[in-house]
Amino acid sequence: MKKKIVSVVMGSDSDLAVMDEAIKILQEFKIGFEVIITSAHRSPRRTSLYAQRASNRGIEVIIAGAGHSAHLAGVIASHTTLPVIGVPIDSSPLSGIDALFSTVQMPAGIPVAAMAVGKSGARNAAIFSAQILCAAHPEIKKEIDAYRKKLARKLAEKSKVLEKQYS
Amino acid sequence: MKKKIVSVVMGSDSDLAVMDEAIKILQEFKIGFEVIITSAHRSPRRTSLYAQRASNRGIEVIIAGAGHSAHLAGVIASHTTLPVIGVPIDSSPLSGIDALFSTVQMPAGIPVAAMAVGKSGARNAAIFSAQILCAAHPEIKKEIDAYRKKLARKLAEKSKVLEKQYS
Amino acid sequence: MKKKIVSVVMGSDSDLAVMDEAIKILQEFKIGFEVIITSAHRSPRRTSLYAQRASNRGIEVIIAGAGHSAHLAGVIASHTTLPVIGVPIDSSPLSGIDALFSTVQMPAGIPVAAMAVGKSGARNAAIFSAQILCAAHPEIKKEIDAYRKKLARKLAEKSKVLEKQYS
Amino acid sequence: MKKKIVSVVMGSDSDLAVMDEAIKILQEFKIGFEVIITSAHRSPRRTSLYAQRASNRGIEVIIAGAGHSAHLAGVIASHTTLPVIGVPIDSSPLSGIDALFSTVQMPAGIPVAAMAVGKSGARNAAIFSAQILCAAHPEIKKEIDAYRKKLARKLAEKSKVLEKQYS
Amino acid sequence: MKKKIVSVVMGSDSDLAVMDEAIKILQEFKIGFEVIITSAHRSPRRTSLYAQRASNRGIEVIIAGAGHSAHLAGVIASHTTLPVIGVPIDSSPLSGIDALFSTVQMPAGIPVAAMAVGKSGARNAAIFSAQILCAAHPEIKKEIDAYRKKLARKLAEKSKVLEKQYS
Amino acid sequence: MKKKIVSVVMGSDSDLAVMDEAIKILQEFKIGFEVIITSAHRSPRRTSLYAQRASNRGIEVIIAGAGHSAHLAGVIASHTTLPVIGVPIDSSPLSGIDALFSTVQMPAGIPVAAMAVGKSGARNAAIFSAQILCAAHPEIKKEIDAYRKKLARKLAEKSKVLEKQYS
Amino acid sequence: MKKKIVSVVMGSDSDLAVMDEAIKILQEFKIGFEVIITSAHRSPRRTSLYAQRASNRGIEVIIAGAGHSAHLAGVIASHTTLPVIGVPIDSSPLSGIDALFSTVQMPAGIPVAAMAVGKSGARNAAIFSAQILCAAHPEIKKEIDAYRKKLARKLAEKSKVLEKQYS
Amino acid sequence: MKKKIVSVVMGSDSDLAVMDEAIKILQEFKIGFEVIITSAHRSPRRTSLYAQRASNRGIEVIIAGAGHSAHLAGVIASHTTLPVIGVPIDSSPLSGIDALFSTVQMPAGIPVAAMAVGKSGARNAAIFSAQILCAAHPEIKKEIDAYRKKLARKLAEKSKVLEKQYS
Repeated sequence: MKKKIVSVVMGSDSDLAVMDEAIKILQEFKIGFEVIITSAHRSPRRTSLYAQRASNRGIEVIIAGAGHSAHLAGVIASHTTLPVIGVPIDSSPLSGIDALFSTVQMPAGIPVAAMAVGKSGARNAAIFSAQILCAAHPEIKKEIDAYRKKLARKLAEKSKVLEKQYS
Repeated sequence: MKKKIVSVVMGSDSDLAVMDEAIKILQEFKIGFEVIITSAHRSPRRTSLYAQRASNRGIEVIIAGAGHSAHLAGVIASHTTLPVIGVPIDSSPLSGIDALFSTVQMPAGIPVAAMAVGKSGARNAAIFSAQILCAAHPEIKKEIDAYRKKLARKLAEKSKVLEKQYS
Repeated sequence: MKKKIVSVVMGSDSDLAVMDEAIKILQEFKIGFEVIITSAHRSPRRTSLYAQRASNRGIEVIIAGAGHSAHLAGVIASHTTLPVIGVPIDSSPLSGIDALFSTVQMPAGIPVAAMAVGKSGARNAAIFSAQILCAAHPEIKKEIDAYRKKLARKLAEKSKVLEKQYS
Repeated sequence: MKKKIVSVVMGSDSDLAVMDEAIKILQEFKIGFEVIITSAHRSPRRTSLYAQRASNRGIEVIIAGAGHSAHLAGVIASHTTLPVIGVPIDSSPLSGIDALFSTVQMPAGIPVAAMAVGKSGARNAAIFSAQILCAAHPEIKKEIDAYRKKLARKLAEKSKVLEKQYS
Repeated sequence: MKKKIVSVVMGSDSDLAVMDEAIKILQEFKIGFEVIITSAHRSPRRTSLYAQRASNRGIEVIIAGAGHSAHLAGVIASHTTLPVIGVPIDSSPLSGIDALFSTVQMPAGIPVAAMAVGKSGARNAAIFSAQILCAAHPEIKKEIDAYRKKLARKLAEKSKVLEKQYS
Repeated sequence: MKKKIVSVVMGSDSDLAVMDEAIKILQEFKIGFEVIITSAHRSPRRTSLYAQRASNRGIEVIIAGAGHSAHLAGVIASHTTLPVIGVPIDSSPLSGIDALFSTVQMPAGIPVAAMAVGKSGARNAAIFSAQILCAAHPEIKKEIDAYRKKLARKLAEKSKVLEKQYS
Repeated sequence: MKKKIVSVVMGSDSDLAVMDEAIKILQEFKIGFEVIITSAHRSPRRTSLYAQRASNRGIEVIIAGAGHSAHLAGVIASHTTLPVIGVPIDSSPLSGIDALFSTVQMPAGIPVAAMAVGKSGARNAAIFSAQILCAAHPEIKKEIDAYRKKLARKLAEKSKVLEKQYS
Repeated sequence: MKKKIVSVVMGSDSDLAVMDEAIKILQEFKIGFEVIITSAHRSPRRTSLYAQRASNRGIEVIIAGAGHSAHLAGVIASHTTLPVIGVPIDSSPLSGIDALFSTVQMPAGIPVAAMAVGKSGARNAAIFSAQILCAAHPEIKKEIDAYRKKLARKLAEKSKVLEKQYS
């Protein structure tokens, strides 16, 4: 079993549909990870303890997804110096712009790395965690390179089909 | 000296220019209050402890002002069942819409009472705290009534001047 | 039968689907409440009378939900010094941002406590009313505490399921 | 002295700088008007009475300017069937988008004619009131036609200067 | 057959679903009206001619609905001094905020009376046209008063049902 | 076979549903075109090479559609002096406003001609490319003129149906 | 004297401060141009005639700058098949987002090429007009290439200064 | 002299006023860094080469600041697998919301870590780079811890002053 070095947290189980995009990338990249639900608001002590202990438990990067006034990533970041990546989730009637501003507009001193709203952001959070982990886990570099090549290759293949269709 | 029953907190001393509007109302209404700086992000433990102990220290309402991704009111609300009133402050280039969404869009379970962005919101936060306190401190009701009358009277006086000018 | 101390008002019966979230919390917390439809625009006299008499009828907190240029909470607040909690409802093509600004951006003098847009906001309005009522109705404190514990417990249970699934 | 048929109301004397644009047009068009301060929130009874009596006092069109969650025009419209023209004023940190949504997004049943935010809107409110009044006061038609011609002529003159400069 | 005094124009036949709300009110109020499709962009000459001749054809108020960068109301207003009421339609991915800004933010000189985005706005456009027409057509006043009473009565009836249900 | 002078590029095959509106116009106008998938982010070298070589391959106008932080048009524009037309696509939860700002807010020096978000924008991109191409390919002018006439005629026909229905 | 092939139009002489950025580029690129003031709203006939005759007068590209609900570019585009480039100007309290939406969100059929809000957009409008004109005026290509080189060279020089300062 | 492991890039020398906040933190943390100007649009080849070579030159984290449709961070990220941190700069009339969306809304596959708009974001970019670098450069951890303590201490000191003033 792989050592868990990425922690994927979300504020509610209803966020799983979005955060699953991060999970699938971590699995594809063979990075050990855990998945946890904890809320900045409904379980603040649990969240503080989680954040304070993450580093000692061997976690190296945290990915936090939340909707509405998404404080989860910011609260975790305030309790640890591990890199925290925030995924704004579009679960309110405001289409995620509330979660985006709450995640990205951190005041000076305590940074959160914000990704795009929703599934693209979740997937990129996992890829960005891999890019950070490369320094200490050089084997991950190969996975990223392979993934990038796959992206470019797939795109070229799809282009070829289209190019033919309209030539 | 008056017993302190309202706690005015802000995330940074640069927020004082805005939060002073709340302070002036509390003074006018003769409500005992304290003023504290604590940040959801830069001093999270201090903020948690503050919130957890506020009720025992005799605080009955909390007014929290913050800018950017304004988590202060939400974090405090997660640690106490006292009513928490949030004042979004326009201290980032986004004119306070970031602070507004971060304050008002709280997920279900842990409410924050959001006021308008900036000075109007700060003043209203103090008035709203007075309206809450009336239940247990009936003498405050008189202050609110007097304030409302003054508002209406001043407005009528200013109108009279204008009405004459254009008649 | 419980004495009615919270009044839930809405601008239209089509708002009931959202405001029902508030009703369910008030029932769960065993707080006596009434439900009324009145519109700031379509029945202004009815709304003024309602607001002016609410306190004498024993109402202690008002929860007002409305969509579009949501003036209901503001109009009620102008006729009473009871705490008024506003719930912006996403019933126009603008996804509730119109109702949010109309509810939260109250000018200095007459506060409304704004909640999040839609169902989360409605639920929080009821919880916030409970937090206000605690001062005069200490038995409600237990309900809030129980509710918070339930929130945290459920979340921990759901987390456990997820943690296992990915371990 | 001219009979006052347009009523210019504003929520605060600080709105006069903007609403003065409406006043100047009414003077230029020789339309009798009054100027009044009354607030939807700080003087609700005064505002209701004002709106209910306006028609009987001979007022034919109402121009209402307000900032923040600008309810003034909407509240007046709910108490009269006179045409009400709303001018959103940019007096909050949100640059008037709050006042715009509060003014224009009226729910079905009680219309307000919204103008642009700020000075352009105030000037247009007066011109639009003139366009409405034409039906019963045909002499105003000449003023509008003259004004439009002046607008077009001035523009052509300024263009000529510029055209020469760059030819 | 009734004399046509209101002209309902729209930029595309796909706007009819929204503008039908205006048509139904005009029918209910027994106001003679016509319905026309003309586009500021796709048929500019037709639109100019339409606007220039409307007054001579006996039209007294124009209601113009359009989506996207909704120029229809503004272009018509530039060619006539009849009151022009604009209905922003949510037909683009931006949910009608584009049509709202294009309709309401008219520069000083040529006013358009903007209504809310979508169906509420269409209905209010017809009601507002009725409020304008009252001056010259006093029989319409009765229709508006009856409509307002019906609105208030329906609302009170619906409230009664709800009040009982929760008492 | 027609010489390909317009190049339609998109960032992903999922953008085809929108970009197909451009393709249909180019076919209707009998303008030779190619369709290519290339991404500013997932295949940057391919995109640079594509842009650098487009002119030499005989391409005269480029239409680039992309969603999210839509950099495709901007990146291509930085590598060529051919006119680049950008179509923002609404493929993220933010409804295309992200793609619109990313496409239109180009810094001074390297222009992109931005169209409306989504299908209207795609269609207009093709029409605008035709308007540009007229200078060197006068036969296209006839197609545009015919298309415009068709637009106006269809609109007049639909209006006639509606006018009758309500007369 | 150079033949005028670009027409720079603006809705008001107050737009000149912004549109001057376009003028300076046209001068630098030695492209013959004219400068005209005409308004979609205040001088509609003048604007229609201007647009209808532009092509016959030898104009090949039109650059139109306007603020508020910026209809100028759209109205011109409806009367000509010349390429029309729109520059949204930030002259209202809404910071130009109103002008941006009014310019860029053109409905299908009549395209406008939108540039960024304000001075960057004005400069790019001139550069884009040059890129269009290249097809028929190959001598302009050299100017664009020289301009691009200058941009890149200046940037590299400024970078060198900074690089040294921090090495 | 310290080995340069962080590269601070910006799109224009006018961005230096904002990016200087990042530079000051890097100096305070004793992290070797370089400062470079390169533009995604005005010097695309320079930018591609810069990004492709950064890793080989020993750079471990890239901080990229840009305004308008801020493509710089995204373009760099497409050419390297080093972590790229984006700082949206408020240099256009849209107050940086354009730069924010352009930076944060990256499509799935190529992540950029977005910070807040403006100076807070620049400072946090440097702190976040330090948090990433900790893994390979453990001495930086001490700097971050000291910085965080200083933040909390300063805040407590300022609070003490305020608390006294109002006690």
